[in-house]
Amino acid sequence: MKLYSRQHLERSMDYSKAVQMLEAGFIAFSRGQVQVPAVQCFDFAQHNGDCCVKSAYISGEDCFTVKVSTGFYDNPRKGLDSNNGLMLVLSARTGLPLALLQDEGWLTCLRTALAGQIVARHLAPREVQAIGILGTGMQARMQLQHLLPVTSCRHVVVWGRQSAALEHYRAFAEQLGCQVETTLDAEYVAAKANLIVTATPSRTALLRSEWIRPGTHITAVGADAPGKQELDAALLGKADRLFVDALAQCSHYGESAHALRAGLIDIDKLLELGRLLSGEVEGRSNDHQITLADLTGVAVQDAQIAQCALACCLAD
Amino acid sequence: MKLYSRQHLERSMDYSKAVQMLEAGFIAFSRGQVQVPAVQCFDFAQHNGDCCVKSAYISGEDCFTVKVSTGFYDNPRKGLDSNNGLMLVLSARTGLPLALLQDEGWLTCLRTALAGQIVARHLAPREVQAIGILGTGMQARMQLQHLLPVTSCRHVVVWGRQSAALEHYRAFAEQLGCQVETTLDAEYVAAKANLIVTATPSRTALLRSEWIRPGTHITAVGADAPGKQELDAALLGKADRLFVDALAQCSHYGESAHALRAGLIDIDKLLELGRLLSGEVEGRSNDHQITLADLTGVAVQDAQIAQCALACCLAD
Repeated sequence: MKLYSRQHLERSMDYSKAVQMLEAGFIAFSRGQVQVPAVQCFDFAQHNGDCCVKSAYISGEDCFTVKVSTGFYDNPRKGLDSNNGLMLVLSARTGLPLALLQDEGWLTCLRTALAGQIVARHLAPREVQAIGILGTGMQARMQLQHLLPVTSCRHVVVWGRQSAALEHYRAFAEQLGCQVETTLDAEYVAAKANLIVTATPSRTALLRSEWIRPGTHITAVGADAPGKQELDAALLGKADRLFVDALAQCSHYGESAHALRAGLIDIDKLLELGRLLSGEVEGRSNDHQITLADLTGVAVQDAQIAQCALACCLAD
Repeated sequence: MKLYSRQHLERSMDYSKAVQMLEAGFIAFSRGQVQVPAVQCFDFAQHNGDCCVKSAYISGEDCFTVKVSTGFYDNPRKGLDSNNGLMLVLSARTGLPLALLQDEGWLTCLRTALAGQIVARHLAPREVQAIGILGTGMQARMQLQHLLPVTSCRHVVVWGRQSAALEHYRAFAEQLGCQVETTLDAEYVAAKANLIVTATPSRTALLRSEWIRPGTHITAVGADAPGKQELDAALLGKADRLFVDALAQCSHYGESAHALRAGLIDIDKLLELGRLLSGEVEGRSNDHQITLADLTGVAVQDAQIAQCALACCLAD
């Protein structure tokens, strides 16, 4: 059994290979070719923490993955990151453990960011006036970083709740070659940007439906568990095309669930990303449409990023 | 994060500490103090394999456990063991991974065998005439090994389907200081032994109800998944006291499920082991009663044996 550190995984990662594998994973998932048992969840109320175990196997592949991810929100006070985690890759031929990827949650951040890239490549308007980012944390950074390969736009408008965090984000984005505007007003993001990513842990809507201009694409990645929400539910009704990573999951939580529960959309409006990627359903058909992707995160992404990471390390 | 091999774990294990922790685990489980998410299962039909992910956390403990166990039944042809697995121990205070126990399934075998010991100490008749074992595999061996500390009887009657396997078992049991009779006839075991353990992967009943003599105790550990069965369902109706490790699970599969489905017992007859160990319900009250324990295996046992193994390794 091989052991790889986060540093090793970061150093070896082939991002274009990862994108290919994630796309294949979404397609296989939408075709029902993936075994994804129900997520195991723990609640450590006494220590303000939680843990999820997500596992997946794509039929016919040589290996399968078990991911353990933790969030302990008092950790920063102890000098530790809030999020941690690891992935186990096991042989689907013999059951032998092949590798332990001690990624500390990095692979989850990466597969989420690359899903944002995949969505943007398929759904962003032809001319991106500005990239809008809601959030200033790790995921908000990785989303920007992985959007840059699929757009020539380098104008970024970033929203956050704290000026200090916004200035840190500015420094990060400038290092990537972007011109950065920061704002405490989410409406300003909607006014300037037509490719928007929301990557916050918000529990109330941050973007109002009436702010969003025709032609805008929005990817929402923050609402990865019940109770979370970044978008006004009416915005899901307003969107011309609405994509989700996993129909069953997104009708339970994520942005779509709020809109479904409020009766603002019908379940038929939700289109699975895998069907877009396979060409089975069409994406944006003109530059006036509002498109939206509600990404809650599915275990098949973990299985694919883990398998990719292992292949990259072995080839390294 | 610490890594321990099977050899290290075996060398360091303190069996009496393990028994104490398992008993505490059963009691906590029956008191509803354990978070046990639904088991994740994979089926690798193409390669005649399966995998289960079992996780558990006892409220208030410092750590929790995620266990991955695999069974690939064509492995022996490839020179590999059928069963493999590992356990992850994580901090319930920070989420940090503390240890990877590369036990290759040994800890699962051990916790199952020690559960057999716990049950026998509480339910075996005062005078054990002979120990009966059905099965000749790893678990059948470990059950005998861990019964010896709780009985002075050294007369063993072992049943199997193959003479060669029975002779290997004889050699094993003789090394433990036992006098061994082997048989291809399960009725003979019932006629001679009044402390019987069934530890086979059987899918049909091996012990018939009418064979079992008053005063006998039987522990059944083989039926750990739907479809498996070692005992005549009528025997569960005949038993004076019927214990299970987990009520919810044993009403779904295991020996009890067959008897429940056939209408031979009522759900009220099932008593959880944790309630016996805490003194809440009584066990055997005389030497004429037939007692029975249906052990399907619960994740709290994994959490406890893992925590014990880690403590033993750290103290080593």
